[in-house]
Amino acid sequence: MNFPEKIVLCEVGLRDGLQNEKTPIQTSDKLELAKAVIASGIRVIELGSFVSPKAVPQTADTDALYEALGEIPGVEMRALIANLRGVDRAVKCGCKKVKLNVSASRAHNLANLNKTPEESVAGFADCVQMAKDNGIAISGSISMPFGSPWEASIPITDVMTIAEAYLAVGVDEISLSDASGMAVPSQVWDITTQMKKKYPQVSWWLHFHNTRGMAVANIIAAMDAGITQFDTSFAGLGGCPFVPGAAGNVASEDVVHMCDGMGVSTGVDIDRCIAVAKRVCELVGHATDSYILRAGKSKDLIRDLPTKQAKNGTGK
Amino acid sequence: MNFPEKIVLCEVGLRDGLQNEKTPIQTSDKLELAKAVIASGIRVIELGSFVSPKAVPQTADTDALYEALGEIPGVEMRALIANLRGVDRAVKCGCKKVKLNVSASRAHNLANLNKTPEESVAGFADCVQMAKDNGIAISGSISMPFGSPWEASIPITDVMTIAEAYLAVGVDEISLSDASGMAVPSQVWDITTQMKKKYPQVSWWLHFHNTRGMAVANIIAAMDAGITQFDTSFAGLGGCPFVPGAAGNVASEDVVHMCDGMGVSTGVDIDRCIAVAKRVCELVGHATDSYILRAGKSKDLIRDLPTKQAKNGTGK
Repeated sequence: MNFPEKIVLCEVGLRDGLQNEKTPIQTSDKLELAKAVIASGIRVIELGSFVSPKAVPQTADTDALYEALGEIPGVEMRALIANLRGVDRAVKCGCKKVKLNVSASRAHNLANLNKTPEESVAGFADCVQMAKDNGIAISGSISMPFGSPWEASIPITDVMTIAEAYLAVGVDEISLSDASGMAVPSQVWDITTQMKKKYPQVSWWLHFHNTRGMAVANIIAAMDAGITQFDTSFAGLGGCPFVPGAAGNVASEDVVHMCDGMGVSTGVDIDRCIAVAKRVCELVGHATDSYILRAGKSKDLIRDLPTKQAKNGTGK
Repeated sequence: MNFPEKIVLCEVGLRDGLQNEKTPIQTSDKLELAKAVIASGIRVIELGSFVSPKAVPQTADTDALYEALGEIPGVEMRALIANLRGVDRAVKCGCKKVKLNVSASRAHNLANLNKTPEESVAGFADCVQMAKDNGIAISGSISMPFGSPWEASIPITDVMTIAEAYLAVGVDEISLSDASGMAVPSQVWDITTQMKKKYPQVSWWLHFHNTRGMAVANIIAAMDAGITQFDTSFAGLGGCPFVPGAAGNVASEDVVHMCDGMGVSTGVDIDRCIAVAKRVCELVGHATDSYILRAGKSKDLIRDLPTKQAKNGTGK
């Protein structure tokens, strides 16, 4: 297998993670988390979204986060938007990177919006123009390209059509988002290999949820296919929109820990990353689906064991 | 990536899984589980161990399981042994397959047994002889070849030396067992690729614990390296001997579900496999680290959703 020397992680916990939590988190706590995430070495962070506060109350204070943080050299802070109102909020609060989203499901799109996914993306042209006019970078996400609850499978030609629609409106940074946790590693490898080859001009991101325990394996498959940009969420916060109580996004600390063991650089300090995840658990008030928070680092085991063995009198 | 057309799973829940449980499971319940596992399509099953009932009371009734099940055509039922007493018990109850184990850690072996791992394996010669004299097949396991709590890393040359010690006493079926959950996918790929190439006469098994969330990714890496035999445990039962409360063996149903999605045949019926895992949770009296028990199959989502959508009035 071929693994990259380094990868870039985007911490999406403040948006995709907290969005799934019932306990409201104070803006001051979010700010503390954002600063700690950046101090851990993360250079791309999804701060929130500029969407209806009624629909997603958890990210209603995204504007305040941007205003408080200001611009931080070398750090990209992105937010999700759905329309022109989102770009307008981005302009006003000093946000310099926004992200659009469309579902890969034709059945879902046609039933809910009476549009194909590529028609939805074509409709984003005004957002792209307004963002660019205001010096705001813009990227696009395709959710559920590996399978959706609305059809047995998504043909890769559909995913290509949507990618081309993004390129047509001037978006060349695209995320493939497995929000329903249905992707399997062989499929991830096949699709990312084909998409990378067909659209070499695109900067690809992969976004996996660990709903069915395959997120880390999917990241491994994507890395082998040459993908080097991944979304992760502190403490594994998040969820599956279709399975209440399911595991969330793949945990940042689990991915950083694995990459450390593989010699794949993430630029993130694992101990600071773990400290952030612990603080997140305190704030949300419950344990999460983080393996490293539960088991500790492999290296901790090595350091701690001689003492424990000595106490038991069973080892050296 | 290259994935095999089919793989073979050994269900180790009755041994490695239940061994970690405090609640005693009745022999009759174990028999019911064993029969259900076999009915699901599993053709290799680890029934228990012939070791000291004081050390491992959970598998003290292994002999009774063999006596009750008798021989089942096409199904291999193996048990762990540690010495000649184990072979003797296997002979008496009709067990036809036993498995030895040694730790790959030189530091651990020298401190506890005053022997190197290969000296321990050489000492198994009498077990191998007695097993073969009695028509009992025998295999060997190397635990923690990917890292151990007693040293920062295990040189692959050490693992090779142990494999050669097994071959020298006539054991050519060898399991690499990551009981401490420290293996990372790149390492699994490297080591299995090298071991397969150097010892083509060996029938290799891989055994992963999901302690740090990497078990499924490690299976993917091993498959890509051409490994086709894996241990899994119903409901993800098991644990890490060094981390109390950590996640256990990789869950059988999670692996079968993923393989179904990848077109890799396991010969196992996923619905029967899930039913076994649910029954296991009832018997042990607690939820486990199984993703599929929690989230359901991807296919269930597809089948169920149109109804839910219709109820919400948000979909077709």
